Amino acid sequence: MYELVRSLYPICRSITGEGVRQTLAQLRELIPLEVHQVPSGTAVFDWTVPREWNIRDAWVKNAAGERVIDFQRHTLHVVSYSVPVRARMTLTQLRPHLHTLPDQPELIPYRTSYYQEDWGLCLPHRQLEQLPEGEYEVCIDSTLQDGHLNWGECLLPGELEDEVLLSCHVCHPSLCDDNLSGIAVATFLARELAAAPRRYSYRFLFVPGTIGSIAWLHRNQARTHRIRHGLVLTCLGDSAGFTYKRSRRGEAEIDRALEHVLAHCGAPSELVDFSPYGYDERQYNSPGFDLPVGCLMRSQHGCFPEYHTSADDLDFVRPESLAQSLALLRSVVRVLEDNRCYRSLNPFCEPQLGRRGLYAGLGGTQIRTLQMAMLWVMNQSDGTHSLLDIAQRAGLPFDTVAEAARLLVRGELITATAPPA
Amino acid sequence: MYELVRSLYPICRSITGEGVRQTLAQLRELIPLEVHQVPSGTAVFDWTVPREWNIRDAWVKNAAGERVIDFQRHTLHVVSYSVPVRARMTLTQLRPHLHTLPDQPELIPYRTSYYQEDWGLCLPHRQLEQLPEGEYEVCIDSTLQDGHLNWGECLLPGELEDEVLLSCHVCHPSLCDDNLSGIAVATFLARELAAAPRRYSYRFLFVPGTIGSIAWLHRNQARTHRIRHGLVLTCLGDSAGFTYKRSRRGEAEIDRALEHVLAHCGAPSELVDFSPYGYDERQYNSPGFDLPVGCLMRSQHGCFPEYHTSADDLDFVRPESLAQSLALLRSVVRVLEDNRCYRSLNPFCEPQLGRRGLYAGLGGTQIRTLQMAMLWVMNQSDGTHSLLDIAQRAGLPFDTVAEAARLLVRGELITATAPPA
Amino acid sequence: MYELVRSLYPICRSITGEGVRQTLAQLRELIPLEVHQVPSGTAVFDWTVPREWNIRDAWVKNAAGERVIDFQRHTLHVVSYSVPVRARMTLTQLRPHLHTLPDQPELIPYRTSYYQEDWGLCLPHRQLEQLPEGEYEVCIDSTLQDGHLNWGECLLPGELEDEVLLSCHVCHPSLCDDNLSGIAVATFLARELAAAPRRYSYRFLFVPGTIGSIAWLHRNQARTHRIRHGLVLTCLGDSAGFTYKRSRRGEAEIDRALEHVLAHCGAPSELVDFSPYGYDERQYNSPGFDLPVGCLMRSQHGCFPEYHTSADDLDFVRPESLAQSLALLRSVVRVLEDNRCYRSLNPFCEPQLGRRGLYAGLGGTQIRTLQMAMLWVMNQSDGTHSLLDIAQRAGLPFDTVAEAARLLVRGELITATAPPA
Repeated sequence: MYELVRSLYPICRSITGEGVRQTLAQLRELIPLEVHQVPSGTAVFDWTVPREWNIRDAWVKNAAGERVIDFQRHTLHVVSYSVPVRARMTLTQLRPHLHTLPDQPELIPYRTSYYQEDWGLCLPHRQLEQLPEGEYEVCIDSTLQDGHLNWGECLLPGELEDEVLLSCHVCHPSLCDDNLSGIAVATFLARELAAAPRRYSYRFLFVPGTIGSIAWLHRNQARTHRIRHGLVLTCLGDSAGFTYKRSRRGEAEIDRALEHVLAHCGAPSELVDFSPYGYDERQYNSPGFDLPVGCLMRSQHGCFPEYHTSADDLDFVRPESLAQSLALLRSVVRVLEDNRCYRSLNPFCEPQLGRRGLYAGLGGTQIRTLQMAMLWVMNQSDGTHSLLDIAQRAGLPFDTVAEAARLLVRGELITATAPPA
Repeated sequence: MYELVRSLYPICRSITGEGVRQTLAQLRELIPLEVHQVPSGTAVFDWTVPREWNIRDAWVKNAAGERVIDFQRHTLHVVSYSVPVRARMTLTQLRPHLHTLPDQPELIPYRTSYYQEDWGLCLPHRQLEQLPEGEYEVCIDSTLQDGHLNWGECLLPGELEDEVLLSCHVCHPSLCDDNLSGIAVATFLARELAAAPRRYSYRFLFVPGTIGSIAWLHRNQARTHRIRHGLVLTCLGDSAGFTYKRSRRGEAEIDRALEHVLAHCGAPSELVDFSPYGYDERQYNSPGFDLPVGCLMRSQHGCFPEYHTSADDLDFVRPESLAQSLALLRSVVRVLEDNRCYRSLNPFCEPQLGRRGLYAGLGGTQIRTLQMAMLWVMNQSDGTHSLLDIAQRAGLPFDTVAEAARLLVRGELITATAPPA
Repeated sequence: MYELVRSLYPICRSITGEGVRQTLAQLRELIPLEVHQVPSGTAVFDWTVPREWNIRDAWVKNAAGERVIDFQRHTLHVVSYSVPVRARMTLTQLRPHLHTLPDQPELIPYRTSYYQEDWGLCLPHRQLEQLPEGEYEVCIDSTLQDGHLNWGECLLPGELEDEVLLSCHVCHPSLCDDNLSGIAVATFLARELAAAPRRYSYRFLFVPGTIGSIAWLHRNQARTHRIRHGLVLTCLGDSAGFTYKRSRRGEAEIDRALEHVLAHCGAPSELVDFSPYGYDERQYNSPGFDLPVGCLMRSQHGCFPEYHTSADDLDFVRPESLAQSLALLRSVVRVLEDNRCYRSLNPFCEPQLGRRGLYAGLGGTQIRTLQMAMLWVMNQSDGTHSLLDIAQRAGLPFDTVAEAARLLVRGELITATAPPA
């Protein structure tokens, strides 16, 4: 995963353009990915697909002709969606187009101007302070023309048409945690799931933020009812504990699954309630859709100093953090896959587990966790409690409860009913 | 408001009699007030309107003919509803009729005997201890005769027949916080509301405690269903933080409005659950009516040392406390007036606020509170969440959320549905 | 109760056999008890009634012919349900059949092998360490033959067919807290209830653990719907505070009654949620029955060092603890008996309690608890709140609220509706 992040880092992505297509092409080498496109000018709900933005170069040269700001050195130096410009001007004239972070004077900020025609350059505040007055030459060699919005989609069909949606944004330029980490974890999860049997169908979306998910929802409106669970994946490579932001519903199965898995994962974690600010969960949770889609992060957007700056780089993301994030998602998938209700075939009193070899012999003060899980599953399997309900009530890990259920199914003591509605 | 308190202070009110009528006459100079009357002997539910009590004078003279207790000096010196008496007796004979507060020896207690024929006088315990044995002359120049129970009513019709009830008791003699403060705040709130457009109708009741509200409910039983929200107002002039006592329902809109407004008012406040002891909320919340009427106080009745003593005087009530209480009620009224549900006209994905001039341009880490409120209102406006629901879920002040809703209505992004049922 | 414990202590009980019958015979001298029997080999749900086990003697003799382990000295020395054995063997051969507690080296453990043919002896670990190598003679003079499973049942019919079930296990040998304490408290509660008028019918079960309750449920399946409330009684003689383990439903009336009574009992107490491990509540709460049966204990099974050892003896159980447990159960019975809903006959406004002699005269800052309870009962008696609901909401003891209700019934202010469903 870290190698994928490293490989994608230099590409200058935006919400449209070659950067996104190059990124999707790389992912396609790892997973089966369909690349979709929607032409500029297409109306998608309240929005219009913008013109396509591409950039070759951008710089500011001083009087000596030296590049004092150079896009070739860092993609963040140019404000995304800057219109082309080529002009000479004094520093005073240039200054309104220069963006810095006075409180973090060594870092280049990340700025965009998607829906308002403008141009700008970003640089460390320290550097701005050291620029001498005088004349400069500025060049933004970009194009803003009719073209396409693109996204990548990887559908892994399962036994059920019901889908699990995993969505990550692919529009940020050289920022690692936000969101090359989400892209990498999603890609590797898709690769694993593609190789295993699946009850649910899994749909991975690699979409430009906001406009991409809106365009996808617009085109797929008639089948969003199939989405039973969903997660937006972002900022999964830093070293912080996990943060799960609940769906708008707040108590959807995906919310309860994450709450359970995080409580048992051994890493620090935090649950935060839904709010309509953040990533593409904003769109999935808009009231007309109200999909049960939460957002899994480590550090939370806007709450860490490296956020949307050049410090969100290859050092900020750690291979072991990516691995731990992927492992957590594996646990989530196991819960979603295995969570269902059972009905006891022996509802009156306990079954004699001992006779079936499911119970240790001599009575002592200890009972093993798995046996306890079997007692819980037998007791709660009246067709109304899912294994996740049982795990939560019993305070036991889901995997133990699911293992108990497998043993009891094999012992013909319970039988699966429908998955929870 | 403080001037009104000062002006009403000397009047000897009781549950019937001239004191109440004089008080209502003063209020009538400030607000449109209908004065109602019910004759003595009228049955009102389980109760009977008592005879009317009036008092001209009351005193105890010592052997030298000096007034050692003198009603002219303080209305609390006489037990309210004392039957007339004129007699000479020894201190030993007099003593059972003398009421003091041994733990607060400098204060005159407030005592009543409405429903049991008796007479008595109240004085500081210190004074009682210093009275020499010997003969005294006692006079209570009162009358207890058929007459009327009175109350004042100020109805301010609004767009809706649905009413907000604001009730305060007017039966206490020279006690400032309990309840000249409630009377003053209610009067000035009525004056303000009379001058403004109103969605709800507002009904202000100035009623003698218990028997007054019972008589009003008896006479108005057929239209109590119009009362959508209500507050009993009392003890609003002292310097303590606010206390809101919930209605019997506990989660009525008025309860939620007060909880919200108090949480954002900047002053310390406390919420207490309903109990069937207190002021006229006891009657409004009786099970046959079960009206959503809470009680707003600063200090709680029975819980502060000045309660029902001569220390509840013009010093105990502060002009700035009265002003702050009125300001709080203004906020409550704004919540009730503006709280309604909206339905999004753009339910699928977010609207493009930027295109409508509702969103700041360059993406940064800060988003202004009002923009956040707009996102919340858009996200939650599916016709089931009121603005108060949204404000509570978002943790934002109601006024900000209401302002966001106004902007969104203007932008044709939401439309009002019915007010919450 | 302590004398009964002392008298039952020496008997070697098991899940079948003479020990249980002798125990039931002793109880029959105190309360009307029917003794039931089910033959060995009878299928009861998933289980089969085992053969009957009886034991006359058991010992291990050393080379000198001295009894180094002697069942006559303590019934715990033999593993319950040990098959007969008579053999000479070396200590090495004997050792797999010897059970000790290395962490509690002075105590004899309690071990059983009901459903797996085996034999064994239990002894203090200290003693095992001191046994010299060499040859020993071992004898278990037991029988394991077709016979019966027995239990005792005491039904006290009340006005209603609805039943309160009180169940305790009678299968443990010389262990005092677990469960001679439960047997003694149940017996004396039955004796008291037999002498008093009863609204509910009370059914006391003295059953061998697990197989006994299963057999009872099997035979009485058609009438378990009559069980409105139930408690398993165990470990009620030690000095710890009370522990109540909720029923599977968690909020059944019995759960709420215990929560209330424990909160007001003055002793420390703990509430724990249902889990499917423990005593016979496991069977009563199996999903096919789902009866509202909790479990009342002092120390919790498995959580105290004396549990299932020879230290659970006549010193561990205290007469005053047994008495306090019985007193607590009396309070629980009072709640169950008196808990019902009332409807106000005076729902509009408060009644004038004073006119009925139910209210103290002169208004002061104090109101007595009983008057407060009357106000609460009047306020809440709309037919939907039981007295227990009211007591909980008011924070008053149930007995006070019930006394208030009696006064209000007498004053014709409320009337009983049906008991809570």
